[in-house]
Amino acid sequence: MRWRELGEEECSVARTVSVIGDRWTLLVLRECFLRTRRFEAFQERLGITRPVLADRLQKLVEAGVLERIPYQERPVRHEYRLTQRGLDLHPVMMAIVHWGDVHMAKDGHRPVLHRHRACGHQFDPVMVCSECAAPLQARDVTVEPGGRRGDAR
Amino acid sequence: MRWRELGEEECSVARTVSVIGDRWTLLVLRECFLRTRRFEAFQERLGITRPVLADRLQKLVEAGVLERIPYQERPVRHEYRLTQRGLDLHPVMMAIVHWGDVHMAKDGHRPVLHRHRACGHQFDPVMVCSECAAPLQARDVTVEPGGRRGDAR
Repeated sequence: MRWRELGEEECSVARTVSVIGDRWTLLVLRECFLRTRRFEAFQERLGITRPVLADRLQKLVEAGVLERIPYQERPVRHEYRLTQRGLDLHPVMMAIVHWGDVHMAKDGHRPVLHRHRACGHQFDPVMVCSECAAPLQARDVTVEPGGRRGDAR
Repeated sequence: MRWRELGEEECSVARTVSVIGDRWTLLVLRECFLRTRRFEAFQERLGITRPVLADRLQKLVEAGVLERIPYQERPVRHEYRLTQRGLDLHPVMMAIVHWGDVHMAKDGHRPVLHRHRACGHQFDPVMVCSECAAPLQARDVTVEPGGRRGDAR
């Protein structure tokens, strides 16, 4: 199978990158997962200019990743919350953060640590197989022509 | 804690995005995980121009994600292979692909399916906690000031 024939619209990576494949977009998304919701708060925490922030928030709203919800009248002000579609980007964000922690941290010092409230421990995110629960290794994963998952199992 | 004070160099997302935060870079990386190794093969499969491909491969080599290895003499030709640092990006790639599969596939049809050779099944990648093995939900993850993981456990 040639990827070229598959076309960009058919490729999950290409389509996902069309939504999140921008430096500021990813940094805005990271803030969303840290419960930042208001324009001024994004601005202050990221040190991003107003036009760039407005543009990235607008694109994330258009992509259905964030929703814009009024929190004040007179004047009307909005905040930005992750939709389910946005919340589902959490594994992408955790995977990116973890790779950075492991490969780009200096002397093993991590900029932030993550704690899992469900078990109370500091943790690393681990990608596992939905069927056997074993951690996934790149060499153990193969691709097959598409379809509905489970059709060919 | 303010992210702004943390500085871009201190933020794992910012640093990781500086390596992979580009549409073509991610598409080249996807090809690497599909065992594409040679310049012409990348070019044919991606439909990418030579200068753009050369630039992205060079950047991935400089970032230590790919290594350039001669496979032929007279004339010398090189192929590109994932380093361990590159292989460790597999969870990032799987997370991106899975999000695209779930949220951008048409009518439940996936462009490709993934099979886990270790167990033989088609699977979805699931991000779990390294400590309790439960699937991670965004609302169950909190961040804390940095350090070595485990220092404060």
